[in-house]
Amino acid sequence: MAELDPATEAYFDKCRTKIGFVPNVLQAYAFDLSKLSAFSAMYNDLMLAPSGLSKLEREMIAVAVSSVNRCYYCLTAHGAAVRQLSGDLVLGEQMVMNYRAARLDTRQRAMLDFAVKLTERPFEVEEADRAALRAVGFTERDIWDIGAVTAFFNMTNRIASATDMRPNAAYHEQARTLPL
Amino acid sequence: MAELDPATEAYFDKCRTKIGFVPNVLQAYAFDLSKLSAFSAMYNDLMLAPSGLSKLEREMIAVAVSSVNRCYYCLTAHGAAVRQLSGDLVLGEQMVMNYRAARLDTRQRAMLDFAVKLTERPFEVEEADRAALRAVGFTERDIWDIGAVTAFFNMTNRIASATDMRPNAAYHEQARTLPL
Amino acid sequence: MAELDPATEAYFDKCRTKIGFVPNVLQAYAFDLSKLSAFSAMYNDLMLAPSGLSKLEREMIAVAVSSVNRCYYCLTAHGAAVRQLSGDLVLGEQMVMNYRAARLDTRQRAMLDFAVKLTERPFEVEEADRAALRAVGFTERDIWDIGAVTAFFNMTNRIASATDMRPNAAYHEQARTLPL
Amino acid sequence: MAELDPATEAYFDKCRTKIGFVPNVLQAYAFDLSKLSAFSAMYNDLMLAPSGLSKLEREMIAVAVSSVNRCYYCLTAHGAAVRQLSGDLVLGEQMVMNYRAARLDTRQRAMLDFAVKLTERPFEVEEADRAALRAVGFTERDIWDIGAVTAFFNMTNRIASATDMRPNAAYHEQARTLPL
Amino acid sequence: MAELDPATEAYFDKCRTKIGFVPNVLQAYAFDLSKLSAFSAMYNDLMLAPSGLSKLEREMIAVAVSSVNRCYYCLTAHGAAVRQLSGDLVLGEQMVMNYRAARLDTRQRAMLDFAVKLTERPFEVEEADRAALRAVGFTERDIWDIGAVTAFFNMTNRIASATDMRPNAAYHEQARTLPL
Amino acid sequence: MAELDPATEAYFDKCRTKIGFVPNVLQAYAFDLSKLSAFSAMYNDLMLAPSGLSKLEREMIAVAVSSVNRCYYCLTAHGAAVRQLSGDLVLGEQMVMNYRAARLDTRQRAMLDFAVKLTERPFEVEEADRAALRAVGFTERDIWDIGAVTAFFNMTNRIASATDMRPNAAYHEQARTLPL
Repeated sequence: MAELDPATEAYFDKCRTKIGFVPNVLQAYAFDLSKLSAFSAMYNDLMLAPSGLSKLEREMIAVAVSSVNRCYYCLTAHGAAVRQLSGDLVLGEQMVMNYRAARLDTRQRAMLDFAVKLTERPFEVEEADRAALRAVGFTERDIWDIGAVTAFFNMTNRIASATDMRPNAAYHEQARTLPL
Repeated sequence: MAELDPATEAYFDKCRTKIGFVPNVLQAYAFDLSKLSAFSAMYNDLMLAPSGLSKLEREMIAVAVSSVNRCYYCLTAHGAAVRQLSGDLVLGEQMVMNYRAARLDTRQRAMLDFAVKLTERPFEVEEADRAALRAVGFTERDIWDIGAVTAFFNMTNRIASATDMRPNAAYHEQARTLPL
Repeated sequence: MAELDPATEAYFDKCRTKIGFVPNVLQAYAFDLSKLSAFSAMYNDLMLAPSGLSKLEREMIAVAVSSVNRCYYCLTAHGAAVRQLSGDLVLGEQMVMNYRAARLDTRQRAMLDFAVKLTERPFEVEEADRAALRAVGFTERDIWDIGAVTAFFNMTNRIASATDMRPNAAYHEQARTLPL
Repeated sequence: MAELDPATEAYFDKCRTKIGFVPNVLQAYAFDLSKLSAFSAMYNDLMLAPSGLSKLEREMIAVAVSSVNRCYYCLTAHGAAVRQLSGDLVLGEQMVMNYRAARLDTRQRAMLDFAVKLTERPFEVEEADRAALRAVGFTERDIWDIGAVTAFFNMTNRIASATDMRPNAAYHEQARTLPL
Repeated sequence: MAELDPATEAYFDKCRTKIGFVPNVLQAYAFDLSKLSAFSAMYNDLMLAPSGLSKLEREMIAVAVSSVNRCYYCLTAHGAAVRQLSGDLVLGEQMVMNYRAARLDTRQRAMLDFAVKLTERPFEVEEADRAALRAVGFTERDIWDIGAVTAFFNMTNRIASATDMRPNAAYHEQARTLPL
Repeated sequence: MAELDPATEAYFDKCRTKIGFVPNVLQAYAFDLSKLSAFSAMYNDLMLAPSGLSKLEREMIAVAVSSVNRCYYCLTAHGAAVRQLSGDLVLGEQMVMNYRAARLDTRQRAMLDFAVKLTERPFEVEEADRAALRAVGFTERDIWDIGAVTAFFNMTNRIASATDMRPNAAYHEQARTLPL
């Protein structure tokens, strides 16, 4: 790993304070600060910046996409995020196993159907698919965001597979208690 | 489109000067300068920064991946880049149509086999696949770069499909003359 | 549900005593006692009777097969069984997400490769596949058992999907603590 | 093969009397009488017990499923059963080759469409698929039976493939005469 | 159907004399004598002219290819041809159901593996595939013939599917007796 | 290559005069004049004889089919034909890359959807697919022609792949100028 510059050191310290550890994906990128910076900027913009999609919805897309690609790293880390943001451990498991098993409303189901088709058969995504999103209330900007989050995890799934990236063990235990 | 900040305006002017037009992907991202900036930073780092892979090799990966995903935008823009960087219009066509038809050396063939497997079946990429890259001389850092470029175009292919992004017409005519 | 005969009532009581609930699959079958009896007899023989495969190994096959078929019921119930029998929650997650991510010994890896191929492309399973099992020490009887467990979960996965069978919620919380 | 207990010996004698031979699948299971018994109980319940599906319809499902899985044993044995029960050798051939080529009524076509989807993509079977069965007159119990027969042959196809089980030669000649 | 010219009428009469009926594929093409003539010329050259492949081997390829494409017409007509030319009704059934189930010698197995790969994934056929044919004794001309017969049935399978072509009923009964 | 008979020599001379070269596919077939003659007769009938489909439409089918099969030879030669007949180099590229990206009218889109389905999943083509063609104005004869052209290129794609046939270099440069 390259010696971390102060900004990155501060970023990693912030991770340790906030979630107790530095996610292994960031450690992996830290061999080159330009790459780390570009990755973090894109990640933070997509997953944390204001959007018509809630943070939970963006994480649901992350997990449904990673399920198609069977990405151990992303399913573990973002499955935990779905459990935490929803307070619903069953929802997290369903996103990992088969999103069709979840009892979703029409809007979220359409969102995930689009994400999964875009993952599996991007060349068959056409105007009718966008129209199906509009029909349940998504705006053009929302469609961009659904597409961009889907696309991003199609990238990260493959970086993880290419490099055998392993998730931090702590994710596995997070938010594993059923609501009363 | 958002009003462009001076840095972006300068970036677009540089595009116009250097290649005669602003690529439509940049125009598409310009509705949000954070997104444009994150995308450009990642693109420039992956495709232009120093690497054990030549710029042509990175473009070859871009096209072979986009061929699997049948992405009209990326095949057009990066197919042109392969023709220009190689001076070989046939190579560009082969990357678009079926990379297996090209007469590649063992190293480049292994590189594209890895990229295409990572695109089609990322969950089956394992240590043996990385070993095959090492066996033809790639370093660990090269493997990261092959993985990262492959992953990036799996992202951009899906952004283009999700949003029906269309390539600038000029790409079609570039570098279409056979070498004497 | 049909009125339960005394033997079934006793069986269900035994479930409640031993694991705290009656698995929903048994409840589902209880509408017809012949079907319940045939199912239970086959299940108990395959998963609990003496075999060259440990009970954990049979559960690992169950989950790897159910992952291919993306069966919410079986992944939940048998994922919990892998966590419990192994005392390793990470192994359970890996079987659910992508068995190739687990650090298995050669024998167990060959076992799961056979199970997954038999699930995905049964018509391509031939003598060479059985030879690969023998080469890591499996006997003819072991091969039968690997095949039979794989085949059984290809059945149950489809019964669950056909009838929208839902797992008992309790499975989700079982054995979710990392070893110290 | 284990020495047969009297009940099994009687069962095999009954086979010889009734159809002229002991089906090889039963011979294969006879190495362990618990397994043979569990298998026979499930088979007899599914294929012979009262159901809203005729015996012919259950055999049609068996063959359509086995055609997807290209199972030589089951296509041979149950293809013969379709020919015998229907008195229509062409129907038997169509089930083996491509069930879509048969001129079926709406009800049977819906039944086989469900069975084939459940075989090929069980994770995509949802409420809409069950609704399509109800729309042509199937009850909830019928849906269970369609699902259970489909699931059972997804099991037997894989046991046959795993163990290279070969059908009795006599099946090939059965019911090969065209109706006048 | 167009009025038949004398040459075609003679051709059809020859069919009636030789095999008892005019194959429906010829009847279908007879609406246009240029098309019939081109089809017949190609068929006769491929299947009947001298070749390093026996007529039976060419029919085996026809059926193995038609099995991948699940073509009811071609499986019926050419399945009968395999039975007749081989005098082995089991071989005919195996070609229809799953050619891997047949006990073939190394040469014929390599021939069918090539034909099936060329049918399923033509874009992955490369020099190594041709080398595998040479290794079991096939010449360059034989490779052409294996490729050409495979390709031809990939054509006819699709003409039959496109037009719902149905085989003459007589094929079903041909050569259905087991050798003593 | 066999010594050419005068008729073939004249045919090849006509090629040289008309398009400047003898297409490599014809050179490849010229080792056997019966095969060359049968191929040419079928090709000329399908692609040049009167039909309800324009010559451009037949070439569009040729390229869309060859794109599914990723045939380097046919994509190159017939991609050039689409550019020449349409005067639209972008249309040619779209047929090669992903026909869904082209702005086609309803009729041509239905035509290519049929051709691509018939190529990818011929066993699922049924009456509903033909009805979709009729609904946009195609006649029964047109349906034959769409099916026959699709089928023909499924043949030639595989002959090219089987024999590593390479396109004449000249095709690459043809009709590469954008309309003003």
